[in-house]
Amino acid sequence: MLATRPAPSAHQVDNVMSDATTITPAFSGPDGLVTAVAQDAATGQVLMVAHMNREAWEETVATNRAVYFSRARKRLWRKGEESGNVQHVRAIFVDCDADTVLLKVDQVGGAACHEGYPSCFFRQVTPEGVQVVAERVFDPKDVYKKE
Amino acid sequence: MLATRPAPSAHQVDNVMSDATTITPAFSGPDGLVTAVAQDAATGQVLMVAHMNREAWEETVATNRAVYFSRARKRLWRKGEESGNVQHVRAIFVDCDADTVLLKVDQVGGAACHEGYPSCFFRQVTPEGVQVVAERVFDPKDVYKKE
Repeated sequence: MLATRPAPSAHQVDNVMSDATTITPAFSGPDGLVTAVAQDAATGQVLMVAHMNREAWEETVATNRAVYFSRARKRLWRKGEESGNVQHVRAIFVDCDADTVLLKVDQVGGAACHEGYPSCFFRQVTPEGVQVVAERVFDPKDVYKKE
Repeated sequence: MLATRPAPSAHQVDNVMSDATTITPAFSGPDGLVTAVAQDAATGQVLMVAHMNREAWEETVATNRAVYFSRARKRLWRKGEESGNVQHVRAIFVDCDADTVLLKVDQVGGAACHEGYPSCFFRQVTPEGVQVVAERVFDPKDVYKKE
């Protein structure tokens, strides 16, 4: 069950922790979204960063499948709905000011990024310039119909 | 040197990668900010999520010290400027659509969170409720003058 009370501010966290056993992220911002980080549960690799509205959060908690809110498409985005590369959620964390959640996930297919890489962070910024530091797991043309 | 060209959209990434050796995150959004994730370079623990404007990004790249933009205080936030718990940046990554950066850092003092925990994600959401899953490294009252 999810709490329906407003999310705590940073300064209320201690009080909330002492008298509540549930927490709801701070969907009270202007866009009603919080940031969501997905991290590989086994390797610790940061896979992607997306957003959640309250509905995405509640479905994620209820189903243990990662559901985000696509700001571009303005609708729920059940990760893997098109590619099949769903994320099984192994653990959920909420940060100190409750505006970011962290999901530890098992990434089906081994690639979280729509570009075909294991992680969306496949480009490293170095003094020598940008370097692609990962290998593609799939070709997006083979996975997504609209290219 | 940082590129001054506009950041690429997701669909332009391949082209950009083939003819450019620099990249600038997408500061073109309404607030001019991108999301920044700090991850412990040694352990892979996700420490915190914050934001950067162009100035914070450029200073971070130039100095290898994590600099964010505080949305609450509406100014640059040189991480550790008050607590001393600076972040030495070991690697910088930009995600596929260039609206999030990932920093791998060495966290001085062992605590990234202003609440005194190693990570801001010290609360886990479980079927039994919220559980604090970390030990405090410091007491915020001892570190921050304004409590």
